[in-house]
Amino acid sequence: MNDASAPQTTTRLGADQLLDDLYDGGARICFANPGTTELGLVSSLARDGRIRCVLSLFEGVCTGAADGYARVSGKVPLTLLHLGPGFANGIANLHNARRAGSRIINLIGDHATWHLEYDAPLTSDIRSLADPVSREVIYLGQTDGITSGVSAAYAATNQDEGGAATIIFPTDVVDAPAAPNGEGVKEQPHQLRPVADAALDVAAAKLRDAANVIVLIGGNALSEEGVRAGGALADALGGRLLMEPYPAIVTLGGDLPVVERQAYFPDDVIAQMGDALVVLAGARMPISYFGYEGWPSQLVPEERLVRLAEPADDAVSALSALAGRFPGAEGSASAASAQPVASPEAGASLSAASVVEELLVQLPQDAIISLEGSSMGGPWLKQAHRAKKHRVITNTGGAIGQGLPCAVGAAIAAPEARVVSLQSDGSAQYTLQSLWTMAREGLKVTVIIAANHRYAILQTELTRADIPLDDPIVSQLTDLDHPRVDWVSLARGYGVEARLARTNGELAEALREGLSLDGPLLIQAELP
Amino acid sequence: MNDASAPQTTTRLGADQLLDDLYDGGARICFANPGTTELGLVSSLARDGRIRCVLSLFEGVCTGAADGYARVSGKVPLTLLHLGPGFANGIANLHNARRAGSRIINLIGDHATWHLEYDAPLTSDIRSLADPVSREVIYLGQTDGITSGVSAAYAATNQDEGGAATIIFPTDVVDAPAAPNGEGVKEQPHQLRPVADAALDVAAAKLRDAANVIVLIGGNALSEEGVRAGGALADALGGRLLMEPYPAIVTLGGDLPVVERQAYFPDDVIAQMGDALVVLAGARMPISYFGYEGWPSQLVPEERLVRLAEPADDAVSALSALAGRFPGAEGSASAASAQPVASPEAGASLSAASVVEELLVQLPQDAIISLEGSSMGGPWLKQAHRAKKHRVITNTGGAIGQGLPCAVGAAIAAPEARVVSLQSDGSAQYTLQSLWTMAREGLKVTVIIAANHRYAILQTELTRADIPLDDPIVSQLTDLDHPRVDWVSLARGYGVEARLARTNGELAEALREGLSLDGPLLIQAELP
Repeated sequence: MNDASAPQTTTRLGADQLLDDLYDGGARICFANPGTTELGLVSSLARDGRIRCVLSLFEGVCTGAADGYARVSGKVPLTLLHLGPGFANGIANLHNARRAGSRIINLIGDHATWHLEYDAPLTSDIRSLADPVSREVIYLGQTDGITSGVSAAYAATNQDEGGAATIIFPTDVVDAPAAPNGEGVKEQPHQLRPVADAALDVAAAKLRDAANVIVLIGGNALSEEGVRAGGALADALGGRLLMEPYPAIVTLGGDLPVVERQAYFPDDVIAQMGDALVVLAGARMPISYFGYEGWPSQLVPEERLVRLAEPADDAVSALSALAGRFPGAEGSASAASAQPVASPEAGASLSAASVVEELLVQLPQDAIISLEGSSMGGPWLKQAHRAKKHRVITNTGGAIGQGLPCAVGAAIAAPEARVVSLQSDGSAQYTLQSLWTMAREGLKVTVIIAANHRYAILQTELTRADIPLDDPIVSQLTDLDHPRVDWVSLARGYGVEARLARTNGELAEALREGLSLDGPLLIQAELP
Repeated sequence: MNDASAPQTTTRLGADQLLDDLYDGGARICFANPGTTELGLVSSLARDGRIRCVLSLFEGVCTGAADGYARVSGKVPLTLLHLGPGFANGIANLHNARRAGSRIINLIGDHATWHLEYDAPLTSDIRSLADPVSREVIYLGQTDGITSGVSAAYAATNQDEGGAATIIFPTDVVDAPAAPNGEGVKEQPHQLRPVADAALDVAAAKLRDAANVIVLIGGNALSEEGVRAGGALADALGGRLLMEPYPAIVTLGGDLPVVERQAYFPDDVIAQMGDALVVLAGARMPISYFGYEGWPSQLVPEERLVRLAEPADDAVSALSALAGRFPGAEGSASAASAQPVASPEAGASLSAASVVEELLVQLPQDAIISLEGSSMGGPWLKQAHRAKKHRVITNTGGAIGQGLPCAVGAAIAAPEARVVSLQSDGSAQYTLQSLWTMAREGLKVTVIIAANHRYAILQTELTRADIPLDDPIVSQLTDLDHPRVDWVSLARGYGVEARLARTNGELAEALREGLSLDGPLLIQAELP
């Protein structure tokens, strides 16, 4: 029977082994929403004390925060989630993390191995749930397999462009005694594949006499170095520099070259690409986001693609090497034209454009913007080159509810940086519990909710398909104005101070306040 | 290319066929959070107009509401969810629905069949995600397979004790023309399996000379008729009437027999069961909720189980028939002892017990209580027999975040009833967006948040395992008081009026107000 009187600290347990191995592999933070089957690991986390634990009120916040942390730091965070249903709540943001190539290790406590056959209420097929968002799902069936399991998990996150691995640990395995095994797990930095000279030769030959070139960057070419290298190549070829439509994290602004974003709708992308040769530098080939009848999925025909570097390749080196083959490329990258920025008229009502203008004025150097939703996404990325140098995180996988938790993770990964969460109101709802973690951890996040009180992207799609927005059922399913959500009240409910801004002047003042606080502030920006 | 000028209403499309078939099968309501791939069906829902659409801000609200609706009405609701990630957000409450045997049809829009190979950002393995919570996953690969697919979905919900079926419809299949096929789908009421006379003989023989009997009800024996039949049998055998620990929906109070609830921890269940013969009447055999070292999973040995009716069997008829074999059983069911109820002292601070006492006083006849969390769950179910006749919905699968959405679904299924959501604060966070739908639909739901600002169940488990709650990391992962969530503010953010109650008098007043409103009210009940 339960021996509750046995001291917990005398015996080294499987949970201690698991933590040692995870720590040795590089993990320093755990975004957690534990339940009963995770308490053995919680107890070990407490004894160990080396891994920072961040609690969230909902699992989607944990996984989104882990994604944001991974994108900003390049390190491997942990998530700790409760059985199949708890993990399921984190799947949407793990889907985005998969598309971003974020290295994450998910930890899921499971029933004791001997209890599974009884099909207790919380039993479910965890593997089936985890597979679609995991490079590998590892079931720790015995205590002496913990170290090799953790090694395999880290190795899985290094496959191709990276991704999450999921470890399922039954309670009896982590509660069993575990002698130190002397094996240990080694930290394995993520290695990008070098691009072979032969591939450079092929690309150079194709581009030699090209009249119209687009350099489309993705992967590691979204870094500051990559943007400069991409700009240099585009300059050398007399072409344009574009980025994939949903970068995991991209550096923009300051003296960096202007980067045009790939458009969204297929007709717009086709027009944007024209008859250019498109150099894929860490980016996937342009495809349509959804399949629309009468439009192709692949938006640039194969013969116009120059496949320089895959997302798992070292696109930065490839870009630099390729630019070196074109005389005059070195250092010729066009800096952004220094267009002046100025606050929009204080008394006027807010618009997406005026929010952007004010943020251009106030955004501090080296800030990080977590960007989600169509209302501000397009407008910001069109103007980002006019801001001070900053990084932008976008929604890579289209699973909405990414922006707020990614801001949490980014702020923890880069405590010196100011984080701005530029966030549509519809998508903010899926993980609004992020606000509580922002308050709890005192994170320097300024949240701007683009409050238009509707699913604007759906209304755009419906209008394109000639479906009337004023039909009662269409309106019932796309309008969010009845009742109108009061984000100021929601934020305060979570301990985050908040301001309502209807005019440019109100926004400017609230933004100044937010950007100077040593903690979070939410601004509800009322948009038409 | 897109022919946006073609009128949408002239051609009958696959989406219209899909809706016709769903309607013919019995669906009358759709809990929706659609995205782009569902807009063809949204358009058809608008043209059709026969199916009520209820929007939620998060998918877990849709699936939980569908579950609550199914439990209260016995009918088959629809959910409409966006691709894999949107569906994933609804999995937790579908897990609970699976345990409750709730019949639901999930509709998921997918990319066009010809677009899938391009692995667009939102592409994922939907089937792998849906399988664990679906009796069957049906992919509508072609327009002329829609009717047979819908028939198969309804049939799947009728397997065994019921459950959800999931239909994945690619956009090109529902956007294609579909001539009426003259087949149609027939409504198929859920048939429980009759219990054979031979099984009754076996049970009767086992019980003939038993000194100590427990009748453990579940399945359809949780209905008013079943509770009476179970009570009659227990009386006839001189035994006790118990119910499974997490009933899908049970009728209690009024003149019904007192029903004792099966305990939670294995030691408590073993003590509760003693050496009784346990008659399983629609209930699963008692097992431990989690596996605890030193305690068995199965809490009543096989030789003391009398397997009268499985969850998929007609337990009510079996109970009545069996009771008929014991003389004197007819009509002898002991009515609840009419213990008086009275409001607790107005000036005193709230406790779980005093919230229960006040609710015993005020709960109107035929109310429905959606009960989630350990803080109020145990206390209410111990006293429920003293209230007027009412129904209680509980968390069948342990995936938290069920209570608020189930209250939404219950209120829509039974608009004449008063719904009380008796809800722990921790679990309320997972689907708090339910409040918006309550306001939008004007639902008569009174939400009582048991606000103790901690994960009390985890702290109970930790204490049992001798792990100190004041350890900084343990506290970081189980305490919710920093910052303290202001539920009044959260509710108002969603357009739901709210009251804070610290004393019994404040609760009594707020409850009177809530129970008389023609819409929702939230009461934050501050508990120790």
